[in-house]
Formats: sequence, structure tokens, C-alpha cells
Amino acid sequence: MAIEIEQPRVGLSKIAVSKTHGEDSPYFAGWKAYDENPYDEFRNPSGVIQMGLAENQVSFDILEEYLEQHAEEASWGKKASGFRENALFQDYHGLQSFRKAMASFMEQIREGRAKFNPDRVVLTAGATAANELLTFILADPGDALLVPTPYYPGFDRDLRWRTGVNIVPIHCDSSNNFQVTPQALEAAYKNAESLNIKVRGVLITNPSNPLGATIHRSTLEQILDFVTIKNIHLVSDEIYSGSVFSPTEFTSVAEILESRSYKDCERVHIVYSLSKDLGLPGFRVGTIYSYNDRVVTTARRMSSFTLISSQTQQLLGSMLSDEKFTGNYITKNRERLRNRYEKMVGGLRNAGVECLEGNAGLFCWVNLSPLLENQTRESELAVWEAILHRVKLNISPGSSCHCSEPGWFRVCFANMSEKTLEVALKRIQSFMEERKITSG
Amino acid sequence: MAIEIEQPRVGLSKIAVSKTHGEDSPYFAGWKAYDENPYDEFRNPSGVIQMGLAENQVSFDILEEYLEQHAEEASWGKKASGFRENALFQDYHGLQSFRKAMASFMEQIREGRAKFNPDRVVLTAGATAANELLTFILADPGDALLVPTPYYPGFDRDLRWRTGVNIVPIHCDSSNNFQVTPQALEAAYKNAESLNIKVRGVLITNPSNPLGATIHRSTLEQILDFVTIKNIHLVSDEIYSGSVFSPTEFTSVAEILESRSYKDCERVHIVYSLSKDLGLPGFRVGTIYSYNDRVVTTARRMSSFTLISSQTQQLLGSMLSDEKFTGNYITKNRERLRNRYEKMVGGLRNAGVECLEGNAGLFCWVNLSPLLENQTRESELAVWEAILHRVKLNISPGSSCHCSEPGWFRVCFANMSEKTLEVALKRIQSFMEERKITSG
Repeated sequence: MAIEIEQPRVGLSKIAVSKTHGEDSPYFAGWKAYDENPYDEFRNPSGVIQMGLAENQVSFDILEEYLEQHAEEASWGKKASGFRENALFQDYHGLQSFRKAMASFMEQIREGRAKFNPDRVVLTAGATAANELLTFILADPGDALLVPTPYYPGFDRDLRWRTGVNIVPIHCDSSNNFQVTPQALEAAYKNAESLNIKVRGVLITNPSNPLGATIHRSTLEQILDFVTIKNIHLVSDEIYSGSVFSPTEFTSVAEILESRSYKDCERVHIVYSLSKDLGLPGFRVGTIYSYNDRVVTTARRMSSFTLISSQTQQLLGSMLSDEKFTGNYITKNRERLRNRYEKMVGGLRNAGVECLEGNAGLFCWVNLSPLLENQTRESELAVWEAILHRVKLNISPGSSCHCSEPGWFRVCFANMSEKTLEVALKRIQSFMEERKITSG
Repeated sequence: MAIEIEQPRVGLSKIAVSKTHGEDSPYFAGWKAYDENPYDEFRNPSGVIQMGLAENQVSFDILEEYLEQHAEEASWGKKASGFRENALFQDYHGLQSFRKAMASFMEQIREGRAKFNPDRVVLTAGATAANELLTFILADPGDALLVPTPYYPGFDRDLRWRTGVNIVPIHCDSSNNFQVTPQALEAAYKNAESLNIKVRGVLITNPSNPLGATIHRSTLEQILDFVTIKNIHLVSDEIYSGSVFSPTEFTSVAEILESRSYKDCERVHIVYSLSKDLGLPGFRVGTIYSYNDRVVTTARRMSSFTLISSQTQQLLGSMLSDEKFTGNYITKNRERLRNRYEKMVGGLRNAGVECLEGNAGLFCWVNLSPLLENQTRESELAVWEAILHRVKLNISPGSSCHCSEPGWFRVCFANMSEKTLEVALKRIQSFMEERKITSG
């Protein structure tokens, strides 16, 4: 029963009519193409396979097994007072038991090499909100955060849209595997200065989305030195920290602070979430861990706009405080992701396609530049269109991640069954062979 | 294991250091006093009774009974695929079944006198987020929304803090039971104009928090005419619509639009939530219902920052789509709130204290102006302090609600047992008698 409605004449805000939400990029357009014609082994075997979604489905059975064995804790169905307390809970600190469990889980992922104080854990409904919230706290409208490219396309929305803050890119390229250098940091800073924009911080993702690789310890040290010299903030988005294939290959900024005895730590803020490592995006669980007292207090107040359902806090609090379970989950999840990654990279190599060497995440960073007619964004998008509409794979073009080097694509491998991954790899192989024949 | 931390030297944003979050008001200070010394019948019978919290505990048993009988639906403990789909759900439209259930519930509360289209339901993590989100969409920084006083103290945070939007008060007073008049509307508008502030809309709460009374139909018509003539927006926060003691005493702006055949409806937006009528603030369920297509689209995109856990959507979706249950709940909840209200008002009257005639909500609007030494804010706060520290009741002074007439207080009655309410009433009676003796 649709209500017929006249079109608006009354004005909306500049934010409402601006395009900084970024949803008109190929990144989101590809999702729509998938939604209209989704692959299904039996019902739609020629449909689009979604490889543009960084979703972790490889370890769900471990969560399901736990929930089956702990059905009582997962629900309060029979515990009336539990429901009552839970439903009424409205302290923006969040459930203490859940914050403790989050802090322990973050420590466990880092194998105890960093400590987290539950009192510094601020809860938000997902990392999307956490990143926006930090931006509101660290920068004024018109100021900038420096962000290494390529970066997660959602940052255009999360860091800019409602805050009015700018992103100034730190340009990275394949010459050194897209690692941030002191020169690139300085160049970005100078660029902002020349535009008369005040830089308030650097935001990194470690492990990187879309690179699927961790940041070297020495690079992290350089970044930390840089923000200290400039007297600006460092936000380290570590939402893939539990998805590193080998725990020793990841250094959290928390470890570096620990090694520096927390000197100058008040400029450092970590973002985490359960959407990737546990594969629970629907539950909307994000967190800010700040070493700055004032940021903790302000972020907590601000979290009123983005609180996590207490029902969900209770369920996950009980699950994550079982350290035997979490230890087993983390180990198995790492192994499974590595297997997926190797399968993916191997299949691409067989097809003659190379990737950046990865060690983390739910995707790899694929070099299709040999397929480009010209080394331009236009040619990159032409290849993307061909892969989306002819090969029927939705992958994300590097340009949607603001990559300055054309021809790179982010390809996700953990949001599907192994069987579907094999179909996707076969399609790529056929596509590459076809091209060889055409061009040969 | 507290980590020792140096105090911050690196700068934060203007929003972070501003006081517009409003948490330093007596409204929140009273909460702290309660937290430090909470009343308990047995363990702390001389503690502070919390009457500053608009929480609904009177109908919990009905929800609990339902959950006991429907434990399966309330959990997916044994339905593995249910958990998986739910945990992965990340469409910002929200679960369709839940949006449908919300729309039906809103219709049921209005006894079918208004229709709601699920496609216009935008979900947010609580009404706090809904109100902020609408403000971001309707007004630019520096612009204003007109809000009738007295108003909910949280609006200072929700409408102003991160948006940079101003609240310009529409001054209402006891001469006409605090109803909004065309003169008051015009005066507020002129006031904003004289300050060179652009008015983008009017925000009303109906039923009103803190008045505990609905807005008359004729007043609503006048407000709607006013925003139409000025070509501005109308936000109607109806989060207490299911807490009106008799359904016939409430007119939703939706009904007026229906009677006007939706002419000019694109300027109207309704906010709703399950925190009050169902008593579920911990679950963070809010919604925006807009008649403006563009606002719906933009609000949905923005809701990425404040999504509701899919686990909670599923639980409540299944509960609210049982219309027999919801019908029974709404009826009983109304009755129980009326009983509470009458008990409260009767008790106060016995003590010689008068209230505004109420017909809705979880509180009454109490006139303690006879106790004021002078008719000033300072005297009001002196009475508030006395009641908080000597009578040990936390009630909210009207000045924290920006009431322009001193001596009014909001007193909540639904967040405690009947027994505790009786203790509170006795304390007020003693206090009033003591004062009579002292002054007599």
C-alpha cells in the first residue's frame, strides 16, 4: 500500500545533498550488479559471483558449534531477570563483562604482546561508527587526515561525509609493495599545507584493506615518529588483526607503544571490530581503544549515537570470555584464511595473473595492469566492466580505493564456499586464455 | 592493571572540547548522586530513589511471559542457518520483516487511524541517533530548529553537539498548560531572524517529554500550518505514543497528514523508538519515518553509522509481528501507566503538591513553585538540591528542560516498583509537612 507522495520542495542540508557519501563509485555499483543477478550453483550458475565483499564465512561452523553447545548463555529465554536487566541497560559504557571480553580478545589476537585496559574500550555500533566518531573528535571541518592509498572506499563516507573533514592521500605504489615511506608521508603533509589545510592526523589500516598485508614494524615506527614530530594523531584501524595468517607477522601499534613505555601515546587510537575476524557484521560491534583520557571520555559520550544492543553484548561477552574457545577459533580461522588465500593466489598464477604478496585479510590485491589498454583509470574501469559483465565476477577496481597506479583490483575470497571460489578461478582462467588467443 | 598515561597535549576538535553535549546539567548530576547511593528496600533503605529516569518497567512481565513461551524464536541456538544469515546481514535497510513489524506496531498504537509504509521506515540505534540524523539532514551548521520548552534535556546533545545546529526555544508556560501557540511560534521565529539564524524546522515531542501530556489536535494543525507557511520542516518525536493512557487522547501528525491527503507531507518526519513504549532502551531500537523520499534515501545511507544489531531485529521482529500479543501489551501497558500516574498524582495531592494534568508518558510535571524562595532558577535549584540530598529523591528541575517558568519538576514513576513509589510519596509527604511546620 504505497502512499503517493509529491516530490520535495522544502530544502535539505548541504550534507544531505552532497556526494561525499561516495556511494556512486564502481565499488558500490558492482554490488548492485551482483544483487540483480547473483550466482547460485544450481539456480543461476551463470550469475555474478560476489568477490567485492570482505566478509568472512570460513569459520562460521566454529561459532555455530559453540552456540549449539551453549544455547542457554546465548539466550535468556528461561532467565526472566536476565532479560529484564539486559533490556533496560542504558549505560553508555556498555556491559563491563563485554568490555573485558573485548580487551582480552584483542590481547589474545596479539598473543599477549600488548595489554588492553577494559576502561579504555569504547563501544560503537561497528567500525564505521568508530572511525567517524574519532574523526569528529580529532579534526574540525576543513581539516584533514592523511590516509595511505589504496584505502577502503567506505572511508570517503566514514571520515568525510558528516564531519566535513578532508582525506589527503599518502600515495603508495608497487615499487615497494605499497608500504608507506617517510617521503610519502612528508609529501602528503606538504600537499595539505600548500592547500592551506590543517593536518590533524594519519589514519592507517593494519593489516591493510585492500592490500591484504600487514605494515612492517619499521614502517610503523616511522609513522609513529612522523605523527610525534608533527604533533598530530595516529588512528590505527586494526579490524583485520585476527585475520593475519600467522600471528608473528603482525605488529600492532599497541606493541610499539608498549616498547616505548607509552611515551607520547595520547596521540594514538586503535579501531577494532568483530565484523571481520569473527564474521559478524550484522551484529554491529565496533570499538575505539584510545590512550588519550579525554578522547575516551568524549568518545563514550558520543557513543550515545551508536550503542550496541545489550542483547548482542551479552551473547558475545559470554562467547568471548571463553578463552579456550577463542584460542581455538583464532588458530583455526588463521589457518583457513591462509588456505583460501593460497588457493586463490595459486589459481590466479595458473591463469597468468600475479598478486601482491599477502599475509592477512579476506582478499588479495591483484595486478591486472597487463590487461590495460592504456595505463589509465579509464582502461582500468574498462577491464572492470568486462570482468563484471562478461566474466560475471564482481571485483573492486583499485581506483575506487584511490590507488594512484592503475590496473590493481581487490578480489575477496572468504565470502563464498570453496566450490564457488573454484568456479570463479575457472572463469578467470578462461577469460585469460581467451584474451591470449585474441591478442596472440 | 591500569596503564599510566601522560595527559594529552595533542589538540582535539572544537566539538570534542565544547560543552554542547550538555552532560554537566543537574539532569545528569542527579543521576550520579543516585548511582553513588542507590535506594534499596533492604540493603539501603535511606538511599536515593531514582525519579529522574524515564524508564518503563511496569509491563515487563508481559514481555517475559511472551519470551518464555517463544524461546525458540527468541534465539537461533538450534537453527544454525538462522544464526549465519543473521550474523552476516549487513544491508542498511534492515531486516524487511522487522521494518514491517515496526510499521504495523506504529499503526496499532494509533488504532489504525494512520498507515505506515515499511519502505519509509529507516532504522537507527535508538531515537537519540534518529533525532541527530534528521538534524544532519535538515539543517546546516549555524541554522536552527525551533523546539517548544520545556524539552527533553538530551536534545541539547542530540540536535546540537555534532551537527553545529542551534535550538531556538518556543517559550510555553503554565497559563495555557504549556501548549504551543501561533504567537509563541512566531515569536521564536522572529527571535531567530533577529539573531540572523536561519530556521529549518520545528521539532515537537508528542506526547511531550517532560509534560506527560499530548498535544491537542488543533495545536498540531496550527504547527503544521506554520511550518507550511514558513516552508520549513516538522519533526514529530512520538516515542511515547504507545504510553498514552487512552488511545483516543493522542493525535499523531500522521493522522493529520492523512486527513489532508498528504498535501505538503514532504516536510514531515516522525521519530519513534521501542525504548519507552516497550521498555527496551538497552536494545537500541529507533526509527525515522519520513514522508520525503530524499530524506528516506539519505537517512538510510547515514544509518550505516548507527545500525541495529540483526540479532535484536530478529527477536523483536518475531515478537512484534504477533498482533495478538502486541494488542494485549498495548492495552495493558496503557492501563498500568494510568494507574501509576493516578497513584502518583493522588499521593502528591495528599501532600499538597499539584501537577499539570497529564495523559501520557512515564512521568508527571510537578509544580513546586510554592516552595521557591524567589521565582528564579537559583531558587529552583536550591529546592532541587534539598530534595536530592535531604529527601533523597532524584527528580529533574524544569530549568534542565529549559523551562522558562521556575519551580516545575519532572518526576518519573514507571522505573520502580509500586512499593518504592509509595516510599517516595511518603518521603515527599514528610518533606512537605516539615516545611509547613517550619514556615508555619
